[in-house]
Amino acid sequence: MNLLSGPPTVVAAGVDVFSTALRAQGAEVHEVDWRPPGFGDPADLATLALDRRRAAANRAAVERVMAAGSQLVDVRPAREVLGLADRTLLHAGPPIGWDDASGPLRGALIGACLFEGWADTVEDAEGLLASGGVALDPCHHHRTVGPMAGVTSPSMWVYCLEDPVTGGQAFCNLNEGLGKVLRMGAYGDEVLTRLRWMRDVLGPVLQAAVRSTAEPLDVKAVLAQMLQMGDEGHNRNRAGSLMTLRELSPAIVEVDAPSSDIAAVLRFIGGNEHFFLNLGMPTAKLALDAARDVPGSTMVTVMSRNGTEFGIQTAGTGDRWFTGPANTPVGLFLGDYGPDDANPDIGDSAIMETYGVGGFTMAAAPAIVRFVGGTVPDALATTERMYQLTLAENPAMQVPILGFRGSPTGIDVLAVARTGWLPQINTGMAGRVAGTGQVGAGLVQPPQECFEQALAALAQEARAAA
Amino acid sequence: MNLLSGPPTVVAAGVDVFSTALRAQGAEVHEVDWRPPGFGDPADLATLALDRRRAAANRAAVERVMAAGSQLVDVRPAREVLGLADRTLLHAGPPIGWDDASGPLRGALIGACLFEGWADTVEDAEGLLASGGVALDPCHHHRTVGPMAGVTSPSMWVYCLEDPVTGGQAFCNLNEGLGKVLRMGAYGDEVLTRLRWMRDVLGPVLQAAVRSTAEPLDVKAVLAQMLQMGDEGHNRNRAGSLMTLRELSPAIVEVDAPSSDIAAVLRFIGGNEHFFLNLGMPTAKLALDAARDVPGSTMVTVMSRNGTEFGIQTAGTGDRWFTGPANTPVGLFLGDYGPDDANPDIGDSAIMETYGVGGFTMAAAPAIVRFVGGTVPDALATTERMYQLTLAENPAMQVPILGFRGSPTGIDVLAVARTGWLPQINTGMAGRVAGTGQVGAGLVQPPQECFEQALAALAQEARAAA
Repeated sequence: MNLLSGPPTVVAAGVDVFSTALRAQGAEVHEVDWRPPGFGDPADLATLALDRRRAAANRAAVERVMAAGSQLVDVRPAREVLGLADRTLLHAGPPIGWDDASGPLRGALIGACLFEGWADTVEDAEGLLASGGVALDPCHHHRTVGPMAGVTSPSMWVYCLEDPVTGGQAFCNLNEGLGKVLRMGAYGDEVLTRLRWMRDVLGPVLQAAVRSTAEPLDVKAVLAQMLQMGDEGHNRNRAGSLMTLRELSPAIVEVDAPSSDIAAVLRFIGGNEHFFLNLGMPTAKLALDAARDVPGSTMVTVMSRNGTEFGIQTAGTGDRWFTGPANTPVGLFLGDYGPDDANPDIGDSAIMETYGVGGFTMAAAPAIVRFVGGTVPDALATTERMYQLTLAENPAMQVPILGFRGSPTGIDVLAVARTGWLPQINTGMAGRVAGTGQVGAGLVQPPQECFEQALAALAQEARAAA
Repeated sequence: MNLLSGPPTVVAAGVDVFSTALRAQGAEVHEVDWRPPGFGDPADLATLALDRRRAAANRAAVERVMAAGSQLVDVRPAREVLGLADRTLLHAGPPIGWDDASGPLRGALIGACLFEGWADTVEDAEGLLASGGVALDPCHHHRTVGPMAGVTSPSMWVYCLEDPVTGGQAFCNLNEGLGKVLRMGAYGDEVLTRLRWMRDVLGPVLQAAVRSTAEPLDVKAVLAQMLQMGDEGHNRNRAGSLMTLRELSPAIVEVDAPSSDIAAVLRFIGGNEHFFLNLGMPTAKLALDAARDVPGSTMVTVMSRNGTEFGIQTAGTGDRWFTGPANTPVGLFLGDYGPDDANPDIGDSAIMETYGVGGFTMAAAPAIVRFVGGTVPDALATTERMYQLTLAENPAMQVPILGFRGSPTGIDVLAVARTGWLPQINTGMAGRVAGTGQVGAGLVQPPQECFEQALAALAQEARAAA
């Protein structure tokens, strides 16, 4: 009876023509922001929606991500840490062989063979790699992440990070800077000379400095502070690199090495605004590895690209990769380079977005639009949109301009399918021809295919478990 | 005839009841954001409004401010640089004597007498100061600025900055850090011990480092970059301090001094998030001094406080001070301190707002609300409001979140009178009892009286020149 005697209360779902018309007549309308699912087999979507394990599993997974810490405990040669067999190279993204490798990955593999002394010429290195004389394996299979090509060879030094909560470990090589660098596919003399200096001077000095500090560097705290200082933690690491320099420099100057080497190390770190990235990435890796193997969870634990394919993994499906062809970023170019010079998306660095920062916290870093393109309102809107894809807001990673709201954390495959919106990634762009190096920076999204496959696999697993 | 045959076009000034009613009826309304003048004798306001020199004079003044550069060229003892007569102390704000000095200024003067060895006990120092045995003079009368009490004594080291455009010079002592520090009015043993270390180690090391660098530090460029990194340049100098450390550290480690001293210098700089402030302030001072003595200009060239009075100067009235009683800041308190512990506004640091940053660019530094109080929307609204008081937008000082809009620069006394809005200042808060030190940080405005006096003096000058 109340229905007829009182004023109407209307719930409207979908397009807003109906609710707008009612509002114009003074009626109270509650809108449900519903839209048709973006993709996915309706039976799979229903299976996952009704999976009784899902809510608790996703909560457990994302809470493990948010609880994880990250401390820099050592710096060591990859050979010692990762137990790499001789003639093994790690690379970014899902598994790939030489034949399918893109230009920048090939360039970085060639450069690593020259750096390790496995070949004396580019031609010899190509021959060695093409003949299968070097084993290739994803970084992610070794608790390791690498930006761009991600090529990590036995003689490169790696940061050793530890999660004090779980005792987990993660590793990442040292950042070379921008421009002509191995990770962007360049392998010329300047690249090899820098890598040798990093091996002979930078690595040992960092090791001595890190080992001499009483309190390990709290990398998670640095990342959190970066978001208060205009960095988003993927393509803008200015404040993070400066804070790392501040934290390490007193110990660096007390290392027993020539003062010219010490000054060179400080200049190298101070001159590289991306120096922190290789500490941020294993921090995110530690957190996401803590959330591996949670049956029923639809949360993404890895997003990664090898320059040819984009691959993801989820908490509910273990180490299985779901891959699709990598998109090419759109953005701003260095010097005379243009869109035709850009390689498709490459690197393990999308682990930052998987963790809820980078493209997900662009709102914290409005100045980044000058580096990756777009406008400041786009940056704000991107972060707002990512809240629709994620399971939680990380209270440790606050975005001041949004009233200190926590970063959108824990990508939910089901939310991606329902909205049809794909995660936003900020990224560097490597030249597509081996040997080129960096050509720009921009914005990119994963191929929907990865999420379609993951959705189907998660639904199959849910049915098997039911 | 068109007036009657076409639809009405309405221009509405003042309150919005009229325009709202017209809009509800579908009429086109153009609103003029007019309001009654905030203060000022109508004859004075009219004189200044009609002064033919004003537009060009203000344009010239603000363009000089924006054109000025700032380079760190040396670090030297104040005695050598400022030609201070023995037993002279500089202080912040307009002129003041011991009798009128507030607690923190008295505390800093006492501490400086002890530091210089002019007195052995607090009582002796008070006696010496009360008897006029030490001459007091504003920093601003010596091309110098000092944060908080601003007390600068002959043995303190000062940064020497130069404007490459005009050749102008400006000076500022070295920042001691937060808490129990001389500039906040503390004078205990820890304060004096730190000042002696700064005199004996920090000053000489900085001098050697600055003199050994081929390119002088471009302090204006650092300040501009800070606004892209979440600093506003007055109460948040985190990124600026880190960039300064980055720029100076390679030269510091090559200074011929014990490595323990070098490490201590790096730790001191790295541990002080306000280290940059004492470089930012003379940068602003250089720019505003470049705009001194522009007849007809109503632009403010100094805002400064001695803890008792707030004083301003304008480009059109030379070195004349216009003063009023300083307000007490409202904000957040350290530890158990509360509003009753706070001294009225003190320090030359409002030179940052005079330059168009600090409180004027709070929108660039949303995280600062956790330090000075207020909300993020307040911070954005404050910057928007300051555009109403200022003559120009400084293209060198961009605020990313506002689409890289230049900072609101060049406070116009006439605009302040017309709007009735007062400049917004971010500031530290000193304890009102001598010896206390810092009690918090907050927001404050100048007393309207300063602007009323300046307005009257500018109008009188305009009549005399007509």
